[in-house]
Amino acid sequence: MSPHPPSFYHPAPRTLSFCSQCGTRLNRIIPPDDNRMRDVCENCGAVHYQNPLNVVGVVPVWENKILLCRRAIEPRHGKWTLPAGFMELGESTGQGAMRETLEESGVSIRLGSLFTVINVPHAEQVHFFYLADVLDPALDPGPETLEAAFFSPEDIPWEKLAFHTIRSTLEHFVADSKTGAFGLHHYEISAPYPG
Amino acid sequence: MSPHPPSFYHPAPRTLSFCSQCGTRLNRIIPPDDNRMRDVCENCGAVHYQNPLNVVGVVPVWENKILLCRRAIEPRHGKWTLPAGFMELGESTGQGAMRETLEESGVSIRLGSLFTVINVPHAEQVHFFYLADVLDPALDPGPETLEAAFFSPEDIPWEKLAFHTIRSTLEHFVADSKTGAFGLHHYEISAPYPG
Repeated sequence: MSPHPPSFYHPAPRTLSFCSQCGTRLNRIIPPDDNRMRDVCENCGAVHYQNPLNVVGVVPVWENKILLCRRAIEPRHGKWTLPAGFMELGESTGQGAMRETLEESGVSIRLGSLFTVINVPHAEQVHFFYLADVLDPALDPGPETLEAAFFSPEDIPWEKLAFHTIRSTLEHFVADSKTGAFGLHHYEISAPYPG
Repeated sequence: MSPHPPSFYHPAPRTLSFCSQCGTRLNRIIPPDDNRMRDVCENCGAVHYQNPLNVVGVVPVWENKILLCRRAIEPRHGKWTLPAGFMELGESTGQGAMRETLEESGVSIRLGSLFTVINVPHAEQVHFFYLADVLDPALDPGPETLEAAFFSPEDIPWEKLAFHTIRSTLEHFVADSKTGAFGLHHYEISAPYPG
């Protein structure tokens, strides 16, 4: 075990300096038969591609109320979000969305249809949100959540939401709730969320 | 420039041995407030998360024929595929699909609706295919393509396709073509493609 306190650890930044395979300092070149700059190891030949990440979450509904979680972590500490997080290796988008919901709120859900698929190129992410029925509304938030609560559509804290994709997914949900027709919404958000 | 021939370079494997930030040998532990094993640097504190990748492509159609490309690269060298490849940083899924189509076949397209979103957890990937109209059928395949050609639905080389997601996307396309109703198909493929 590490002698360091938990605050010592942090996600590795996108900028790469050393080869993960042999530890040699990397060069930034366009490899043969490629058309963009990559981090390349001239010792072992490893090309270190980097690609966008998927964020997976749900719109969890219980008796016409929506479950939101208040973030206990940065970015957007203290802001409200739908349960969501980074998709992990070995799982599907739906499995990841269910896992994040359980981790962040403690509630178990029955996954519904895919509701929003949102490109966020400036964040190098794609966000997926599924509709979901809450099976048991007992809340047990995990360490990434300050509190979790159910909100009627008219009580959604619009001015205290964490991210643009959360806001737009909730907007689509409220609009579709009025017609009862929940389609798939696929779009791009091209600017950072203010605040 | 490197003195090595192009065959020297290869994608860095998923297995990580050294920290990309400081070059120290990594440990594999469950970090504080986490619940799975990660590659962690005990020198600088960087946690090296790994996540699934997105593959983005299209079903390019010209006068009721579908454009397929025969792969000049491994895996599945010599097999037929829809134009597709890994999503790059800074682009949307649709932009990536258009870029891959141009790179692999030379044709320009008008992107249509999102058609299949396929989880492939054993490959640690999510595949996206869009419908697309070919604007000009002049072919100019890039270095990753042996040849490109247009196929009528009845002439699709079903036994020589590269991947399960290619086959199932083409199956959905042929089926939907008969009704004229092209919905979004979202599903999971849980076993490797034979052959």
